[in-house]
Amino acid sequence: MSEDPLITFLSDYGLADPFAGICHGVIASICPRARVIDLTHAIPRHDARAGAMVLREALGYVPVGVHLAVVDPGVGAERRAVALRLRDARLLVGPDNGLLSLAAEQGGGVVEAVEIGRSPFRLKPVSATFHGRDIFAPVAAHLAAGMPLGEAGEPYDADALIKVELPRAHVEQGVLVAHAVYVDAFGNVQLDASHEDLAELGLELGGGVLLGGGHEAHYARTFADASPGELIVYEDSARTLAVAVSHGSAAERLGLGVDAELRISARR
Amino acid sequence: MSEDPLITFLSDYGLADPFAGICHGVIASICPRARVIDLTHAIPRHDARAGAMVLREALGYVPVGVHLAVVDPGVGAERRAVALRLRDARLLVGPDNGLLSLAAEQGGGVVEAVEIGRSPFRLKPVSATFHGRDIFAPVAAHLAAGMPLGEAGEPYDADALIKVELPRAHVEQGVLVAHAVYVDAFGNVQLDASHEDLAELGLELGGGVLLGGGHEAHYARTFADASPGELIVYEDSARTLAVAVSHGSAAERLGLGVDAELRISARR
Amino acid sequence: MSEDPLITFLSDYGLADPFAGICHGVIASICPRARVIDLTHAIPRHDARAGAMVLREALGYVPVGVHLAVVDPGVGAERRAVALRLRDARLLVGPDNGLLSLAAEQGGGVVEAVEIGRSPFRLKPVSATFHGRDIFAPVAAHLAAGMPLGEAGEPYDADALIKVELPRAHVEQGVLVAHAVYVDAFGNVQLDASHEDLAELGLELGGGVLLGGGHEAHYARTFADASPGELIVYEDSARTLAVAVSHGSAAERLGLGVDAELRISARR
Repeated sequence: MSEDPLITFLSDYGLADPFAGICHGVIASICPRARVIDLTHAIPRHDARAGAMVLREALGYVPVGVHLAVVDPGVGAERRAVALRLRDARLLVGPDNGLLSLAAEQGGGVVEAVEIGRSPFRLKPVSATFHGRDIFAPVAAHLAAGMPLGEAGEPYDADALIKVELPRAHVEQGVLVAHAVYVDAFGNVQLDASHEDLAELGLELGGGVLLGGGHEAHYARTFADASPGELIVYEDSARTLAVAVSHGSAAERLGLGVDAELRISARR
Repeated sequence: MSEDPLITFLSDYGLADPFAGICHGVIASICPRARVIDLTHAIPRHDARAGAMVLREALGYVPVGVHLAVVDPGVGAERRAVALRLRDARLLVGPDNGLLSLAAEQGGGVVEAVEIGRSPFRLKPVSATFHGRDIFAPVAAHLAAGMPLGEAGEPYDADALIKVELPRAHVEQGVLVAHAVYVDAFGNVQLDASHEDLAELGLELGGGVLLGGGHEAHYARTFADASPGELIVYEDSARTLAVAVSHGSAAERLGLGVDAELRISARR
Repeated sequence: MSEDPLITFLSDYGLADPFAGICHGVIASICPRARVIDLTHAIPRHDARAGAMVLREALGYVPVGVHLAVVDPGVGAERRAVALRLRDARLLVGPDNGLLSLAAEQGGGVVEAVEIGRSPFRLKPVSATFHGRDIFAPVAAHLAAGMPLGEAGEPYDADALIKVELPRAHVEQGVLVAHAVYVDAFGNVQLDASHEDLAELGLELGGGVLLGGGHEAHYARTFADASPGELIVYEDSARTLAVAVSHGSAAERLGLGVDAELRISARR
């Protein structure tokens, strides 16, 4: 007997309302054997870029399957709804607003795309505000049940898919100019920079770091190398440079929100 | 091989404590093959009416199965615990405080009811405060495992079941007098009214609307038809009239909580 | 066909980030047939003692399986990562910081322990900050898939495992000196005391109780025996003495946090 099909599900629906649960119900109605893994439903509301980053990271640890993602500020407007097959065989289902773009790139690019706004698999009548329930979940469930992608909608030009733009840190006059790209619930701040960028500044693990605004930090391997309350710069579990406060919130300490600039230099 | 049995689970337990997780454990102990869909555990504490509305809406999208619901301010007191078979074959399990009543009505009414407070399926000793674990989850799991409803407890008169009362909008002197019946986490406010009620006022999609307190709104199809910050009146995904602020909270803007009255009229 | 293997999962990851979802993905990659029950991911951050108490309570209601628990303030430092077999056949996987100790004791003690920090089952490279993903979840999944515990790591002396210390109420001069050991999301406060301790003071169900700070309470069976707003002392669903306010928060009313002392005496 083959394995049960896998669907992963990411959204900004939150868990305070039954939206995610209702989508689970729709999936179970169409493909009762599907196993659904909730990656998270706490993407900041309407933040397709944050959703794209989290989806890309999570798919690095998830088996190939159908990957449903809904962060959809343009629901009911002219944005397209799509389903994509990637080179690595993953199937992505969601709005065409950049949400799927980083995962698609990581999966080797899109080899087949269909526009599913009027998919034969959709629930009718389609509401104007809940395409997760009426379009995306039903399409994902039918794909998990084995329906061919080509039957989910009309062929669509993969080159026309919308991509998210991420900032990119750069070095100017011995200072790394980075940006906050994601803040987790603990206040750890992920940057658009890497270990290599710090090496370029001549910084080494264990060294002192000066952050914009005059904050002193250490370049450490992990929280455990710092005293409670101490600021550290470190490589996080996504292998990206990040800032944290041991037993505290770096976002709060530094007053950093997403997209804020953070200047990093060696402390002598 | 038949499908694995399905249980849906709705409660006001929240996710900050292990209450829902423990009920999952109880179910797995009794019926390991059951698949459990969490509809939501974020019903406002003790609000059986809100639970009843969410349960009714969700069951419209969920396969027939066993539907466990626990919003139970009267736990340990004289309220009855019940299990119900509906005309559409769904089995509902929960307290008899109105929580199950709207779903029962939607499912064609109750064709068999049993009182399960002293069910042979219950876990002993039954605690005074956690009947989800000790009575409702075990009964749901045994039903999912195929036990007949009649063995879950004593026959009970379906006509004696408690029903929730919902307000109902009405028109007086050209004004629709509606009430907030549910507020979601985004601050969208569901009303006890429908598209038809607005038609009665002569209002058409795209028209201007005046809300109580002098707020101007548009009668729109979806958020995407409004500018950020603009108030709209629209038909939500439950096909009910609702008020929203594009990229904002209507509940906050209008100062509306559940049961508050909202007067709606045409804006000339 | 044998049942699908069961994994339970408890952590302090919260649900605002994809950490728990990513661990689910890792498990599905290694043991697709495993059913995973989320006990809770809302253990207070870094509070291994609270995690230990919740895990112990939950395992009383969960079938024997693999029990993954991650509350890990020492991640990346010298604390050990372990997998344990209990006398009752449960397998526990987590950091050796006391988190597993109460469940181990309840399960009859540890009959086999292995240190898994360099387990052949781990994901490489192992990050410095996310051992849930890189060590604990993979080991749990391989055990669920049937790999022998002895192959998960190096033998470890069970007597060297770290245990959490719990306070213990005592009676002095007719007063029960108890401590708050857990506060749930409703503000109910669990104490390190039992029904028997109150009996020792000569207190009986229905009697009046005086709490430290001059608060009057009743010794009741359940919330339903109190008026809204009234303080009660009662035996909670874990069969432990607790304090609650009917339709309110006892923690707030009494200004009690975890570890705070609460003096209880009979009210004449």
